[in-house]
Order: sequence, then structure tokens, then C-alpha cells
Amino acid sequence: MSLLDRLAMIREPDLSRYRRFVVDGHTVGWVAADLAARLRGHDGVFVVDGETVGLSPRLRDYRERTAAVAGVLQSLRADGWFRGWRNEPYPVGPSFGAGLFEIERAAVPSFGVRAYGIHVNGFVRDGADLRLWVGRRSRHKPTYPNQLDHLVAGGQPAGLSLAENLLKEGAEEASLTPDLVGRAKPVGVLSYLLENEEGLRNDVLFTYDLELPADFTPANADGEIEEFFLWPIDRLIREMSDTANFKFNVAFVNIDFLIRHGCIGPEDPSYLELVRRLRRRPGLR
Amino acid sequence: MSLLDRLAMIREPDLSRYRRFVVDGHTVGWVAADLAARLRGHDGVFVVDGETVGLSPRLRDYRERTAAVAGVLQSLRADGWFRGWRNEPYPVGPSFGAGLFEIERAAVPSFGVRAYGIHVNGFVRDGADLRLWVGRRSRHKPTYPNQLDHLVAGGQPAGLSLAENLLKEGAEEASLTPDLVGRAKPVGVLSYLLENEEGLRNDVLFTYDLELPADFTPANADGEIEEFFLWPIDRLIREMSDTANFKFNVAFVNIDFLIRHGCIGPEDPSYLELVRRLRRRPGLR
Repeated sequence: MSLLDRLAMIREPDLSRYRRFVVDGHTVGWVAADLAARLRGHDGVFVVDGETVGLSPRLRDYRERTAAVAGVLQSLRADGWFRGWRNEPYPVGPSFGAGLFEIERAAVPSFGVRAYGIHVNGFVRDGADLRLWVGRRSRHKPTYPNQLDHLVAGGQPAGLSLAENLLKEGAEEASLTPDLVGRAKPVGVLSYLLENEEGLRNDVLFTYDLELPADFTPANADGEIEEFFLWPIDRLIREMSDTANFKFNVAFVNIDFLIRHGCIGPEDPSYLELVRRLRRRPGLR
Repeated sequence: MSLLDRLAMIREPDLSRYRRFVVDGHTVGWVAADLAARLRGHDGVFVVDGETVGLSPRLRDYRERTAAVAGVLQSLRADGWFRGWRNEPYPVGPSFGAGLFEIERAAVPSFGVRAYGIHVNGFVRDGADLRLWVGRRSRHKPTYPNQLDHLVAGGQPAGLSLAENLLKEGAEEASLTPDLVGRAKPVGVLSYLLENEEGLRNDVLFTYDLELPADFTPANADGEIEEFFLWPIDRLIREMSDTANFKFNVAFVNIDFLIRHGCIGPEDPSYLELVRRLRRRPGLR
């Protein structure tokens, strides 16, 4: 599987098979037909018609909506609808920082709600060459167990700023001190809408580069990463090309890293197509 | 004018006002109605119907097409159709490196043909801060005279590789030695389709970062750059925000540079929208 094949999954799904999830006039997600049918049974909370899913107008504010939706999600959960319940509230809204209510993270792909995340490329310079820190996710993670991941990456829950989340995830996942986290540089945004086994991943990833000293060794503190590797670029490319080890979106961020650092250049015949696929979904907000 | 306003011009034109330019079954450009009408008078070379512009099937190969089209363009030029004739052949084709024939550079925007270019961000580190080399274009340039430009930038003509073009433009525009040019790192691609006073700019820009030593001073060798400035980032942002001095696409590449280097981060409320506008046209090939 080439790097280009890794990006083939960035493919806008046929949204005609989903109901638009509309709140306060904003499209905030996409709900599959079977879930929409199930939500009809909760008509004090959800309003489902032939085309859209909405929230009951009797729910007047952020708090009321959050509480009422949480009740429905617990009922669905009891029926086995979501996997990997996290107890992490995610904001739902038309754009970043403009939440209209919150839902449990495990339900986000089922509602096709846009989720934000942070991905940190932790790297070390070795002369003119680069080495990238790679972590292997715990075999006990509810999602993507055993797969290869970034030094630090995580979803962006409600109630934390990006900077606070970087500090928290950096400490938990790799024992990064605030001083080291403070060296992380924002380098852009990746965005995609795709279907996978979780449902619809409608993600906007804030990406960071963090140059680390050669003598730094990450240590996982929360049990979510089993081991870390410091790989030269050719090994990284081989692992991404030859195997399906990498978590899908970590591979996207890695390829963006390789392009931004000139590790892949226009002499590669797939260069323009790699960039094009990484940017298939410019509709991020 | 904010940085966001600088990117507002990246706006797909209404292509229904143009005829599709089709060669060998590939769309290779877009021709405005008045030019299409004029090309009807050259029906041994161009085939114009209500919807498309094509080339006569009697033109059998690259060489024949190039020669026949050149004849028509000279006739149009004599009637005042193109400004800034360059005598630089540009390839016309469905994708990079796949030219079907060549046309004079000055005619490229009139035919809406995709043009490729190189843009080099020449920068100097000053502790943790960056300074960017900026050039002012000659007042005698046929296009965008006096506007601010990159240290090195240029269109990609037929018959040169990107690496050869970098060497040529680096030497001509800034007296860069091959050793210095060799340090330029490819960092991505920017692409847009927009209407301006030249016609349709259907561009794919290969972008490079070139870190220069603090004691390097560029010297223009071809008369196309009047003077150079080494600006700190806050000055660069101020010049882009407060004035219309920058050549339009140089501003795009500068904003991409600021994002990749963390000079603008997600704490800026316009961050996601800046990235979105830079990537409005992922259809590059």
C-alpha cells in the first residue's frame, strides 16, 4: 500500500444516505437512517422528519439540551449503540468554539458531529535528518488498539482550551513537562469527512511540530501508549507503506509532516496527488 | 485589509461564462466568450462550438499544435490581445509534466490554462524569531510592477525541470549560488483558480523554504527586482494587512509560511478560515 493509498480513504461519503442534523438553523452533523429511526422514539428530545434530525424546541439552552440528549444517549447505550463510552463531553455546534450543547464522545461518529483534535509531531534532528517519535496504542484502548500513533494526540473535549489540552495530553501520554509542551509550534490544520467502522469521522485536526532534545525519552503515564519508537524518516515511510499499523488519521498527519519538511518533494510522481488528497475537505470551520 | 481579506480573492469564478478548452478529451483551460468568438476566425487551428474550444484534428502532434497555435496568437497579439509578451513557452495539458502543446506565457490567463510556478520563502533565523526576504518588483515589469515579491519566484516554463528553474531563477533574481539554492526545501503546494485583470489565473505553486545565513545579501542580476528587504514577521504582517503592496499570490504563499511556522496559531480567531481559504481549490494536478 503506497502513501497515496493511505489517503484513498479520504473520500466524502454519499450524504444522501444520512439525515442532516440541524440545530438553530446550523448543520451540526449527519445521522444514519437507522439511528434517525431510533431517535423517533424520543420525541421529547429529538425531532425527526423525512429529511432532518433536530432538537425539540422545548429545550431552551445549552444545559437543557445537553442533559436531555445525555438521557437519550444513555438509553441507546444500554441497547448497545455506542462502543468505548468515555465520559468525555464533546461540543456540538456550527464552528470551533461555538457549541450549542454537548454529547458524549463515543456518540460523536454516530451523529456525524464535527470533532476537533490535537496531533503533535514529536521529532528530533539528527544532523540534516529527522527522526519522529511514534507510540503504539495500548491493546486495551476501545478504539484502534495496538495501532501506531503520535507522541501526543487527543480529541478536544468541551471546557478545555487547545493549550490546556496540549498540556494535559502531553503530561498523560508522554510525560512532557510544560516547558517542553510550550515548544510545540502550530503548523496547520487537517480536515476530512469519511466513513469508517465508527460511523462518520468529521474531524478537524490542529497539528503541531515539537522539536525535542536528543536526550529526551517519552514515558507514558496513563496506560494508553504501550511503547515508543524514534524512527528515521525512511523507517516511518516503510511502516506506513508496507503495513496497516498506523491509526488512519495519524498517517494523514505524518504525510503532511513529510511534505512540510521536504522529506517528500515534487520529484515524487505522487506529490501533487498526495497534497490534493490531504486537502480534499477544505470546508473546515 | 486583514490577512483574511487578502485571501477573499481566492474565489472560483462562474465558469458558465467561459467555454471549456478541451484537447484529446482533457479539459486544459477555460476561454472567455469574446476570445472564443475571435478564435472562430481561425478554424484551421481552433474548433469552436457553442460549448467548447478545441484544436483542429488535422494538427497531429505536439510540434504541429504548438506551431499552429503560435501563428494564431501572433495574429491576436497584433490586434492587441495580450499584454507583456514574454517569448516563454508554457506547456498546456491535463497534469504536471503532461503537456500536449505549448503556448506563449502572456496568453496563458486568456486561455485559463493551468500554469505552474515556484515560490521560494527566503528566511533568516534571528534567535527564535524569523525574518523573511522580500523583493520589490521592477517598475518596468509588464505585470504587477512595483509590487512586493518573494526572494525568488517564477513561472515554470516548458523544457525546464523544477530544480533547473530554481537554479536559473535563484541566480537571476537574487544571485543565489547553486549551493544556496540546493538548501531550498520543498514544503508543499498552493493552488487556486481566480479571475483578475489578466484573465483566469489557474495556478499551481510549488513552494520552498530556504533558510539563509545571516550574512547573505541578495543581489538582483536581471533587473526584475529593484530592492530587497529583510523583514521581521510583524512587519511582514503589517505590510500585508495595511497595504495592497504585495503581489496577490505572494501574499497567499506568505500566509501559508506564517501558518507552517507557527507565526499565526489557533489562538487567532481567523486561523481556521485562513487555512480553509488557502485550500479552496484542492483540484490541482
